[in-house]
Amino acid sequence: MHAQFDFSGSPDGPALAPRAPAPARARHVLRMRKEVLATVEDMVVDEVPVALVYNGISHAVMMATPADLEEFALGFSLSEGIIARPEHCYGIEVEPGRDGIAVQLRIAASAFMALKERRRTLAGRTGCGLCGVDSLQQVARPLPRLAPARGFHAAAVRRALDAVGAEQALTRSTGAAHAAAWCGMDGGLRIVREDVGRHNALDKAIGAMARAGCRPAEGFLLITSRVSYEMAQKAIMAGVPALVGMSAPTLAAVELAEQAGMTLLAFARGRDFVCYTHPQHLGLD
Amino acid sequence: MHAQFDFSGSPDGPALAPRAPAPARARHVLRMRKEVLATVEDMVVDEVPVALVYNGISHAVMMATPADLEEFALGFSLSEGIIARPEHCYGIEVEPGRDGIAVQLRIAASAFMALKERRRTLAGRTGCGLCGVDSLQQVARPLPRLAPARGFHAAAVRRALDAVGAEQALTRSTGAAHAAAWCGMDGGLRIVREDVGRHNALDKAIGAMARAGCRPAEGFLLITSRVSYEMAQKAIMAGVPALVGMSAPTLAAVELAEQAGMTLLAFARGRDFVCYTHPQHLGLD
Repeated sequence: MHAQFDFSGSPDGPALAPRAPAPARARHVLRMRKEVLATVEDMVVDEVPVALVYNGISHAVMMATPADLEEFALGFSLSEGIIARPEHCYGIEVEPGRDGIAVQLRIAASAFMALKERRRTLAGRTGCGLCGVDSLQQVARPLPRLAPARGFHAAAVRRALDAVGAEQALTRSTGAAHAAAWCGMDGGLRIVREDVGRHNALDKAIGAMARAGCRPAEGFLLITSRVSYEMAQKAIMAGVPALVGMSAPTLAAVELAEQAGMTLLAFARGRDFVCYTHPQHLGLD
Repeated sequence: MHAQFDFSGSPDGPALAPRAPAPARARHVLRMRKEVLATVEDMVVDEVPVALVYNGISHAVMMATPADLEEFALGFSLSEGIIARPEHCYGIEVEPGRDGIAVQLRIAASAFMALKERRRTLAGRTGCGLCGVDSLQQVARPLPRLAPARGFHAAAVRRALDAVGAEQALTRSTGAAHAAAWCGMDGGLRIVREDVGRHNALDKAIGAMARAGCRPAEGFLLITSRVSYEMAQKAIMAGVPALVGMSAPTLAAVELAEQAGMTLLAFARGRDFVCYTHPQHLGLD
């Protein structure tokens, strides 16, 4: 199943709400700064193994920041095509354990059968790298063709860039996190999620969008990281017509965005940006 | 097999040699910079699917920068414990194809049997995340206890930091790459490798160290990225007594370094750094 999922509900999604404290712990460290050596307390971001378990079968383990894990599991399931719509996930439970955190998902029988079939037909297992892939033939996944971005303006990108820093609590305290933000076409931030991994941050934002009933065609995603192939793929699977990265893109990401009809901006900082694909759908002042 | 591998050969390894041109391609893009809009040519880093195939069985596919792939395959095999020593890899062939690049490795029968057994006993497959792991019980891998860093000085870290930028050709042209450098205890750069993925850059450097016969106990690794769990794990598996990251560490990485006896520095920029573990093995001026 590779259809774009359609988030039902209000077009804008929720207003930005106050969030729980960032998962980080204090450590005593030896710091050299401006030629002065001192023992100081430093906040270090938490990173724990998180297993995603579908109908009782452990599918993947990621190192992730232990916050917003239900949204993470839902977003991953959608952006990796394990379920086609949020309604195909019947329940999510987070179970902290000794070795890490297990997130138990109950998914529709049809999705579970497809997942089992995918696992059965694989030649072997993939230790890391691309999701659900252990040979080159499986890399190119059919992706939806997106409707063009409508009402997407450079001014909104600037507004989102100006605002996102204030919402990156984990980055401010630890310097170690990436953020992904879902923004309305006016540039207002609707959802911001952080994680030590950029893929996880994006999956968390996509999961939060699904939970809040956001309509992905009516906004854009802003990520504080680079735009690699998998980041572009996840945004396209979420049905988002425009993706803005604060750092560099890769060629594979650019080519994927071009094919899918997604407007891709990168090196977006302050008032600057570079538009790599479909500039005809970017409004300029 | 989780023994530290011992690179035989000269203590310092090779002098830094000129490298092939960076794999990047020019694209026409729409650029907004300092309020001026222009169509310009931009260099975008290449990123292709690379499959690692052991004795004919495809094990993993990673998105990677298509350069130094033999070193990448050797380094990955060592840092992920698929082989315990470089000599257990009998041959590596890089085969470009339509869907990506396959790297064929011939490994010792004992290592291949162990790999097959690992695959057989897994409950299912892992789409992404940790290498060789699809349930929480498999996360904690036995790691070697490292001998303490000897002759490791803050002055050498400064020297390496001052020099590494000049060797990051791919980062300069595309803004999208990470580097990993093997440095002698004098701070001289011996090996620098770049990749769009930080794990890949580190695996390439470890593979290059193995090929060049560097002794991992006699230097340190410098990475331009953050220090996450998997980066610390790879450095420890390589037997390197000190790891220096230019960006933030995670708590899991700090705890792993502490256990293994590795001296971990992060936020290393200019003359500044933060030492998170085993500061007693860091010489100060």
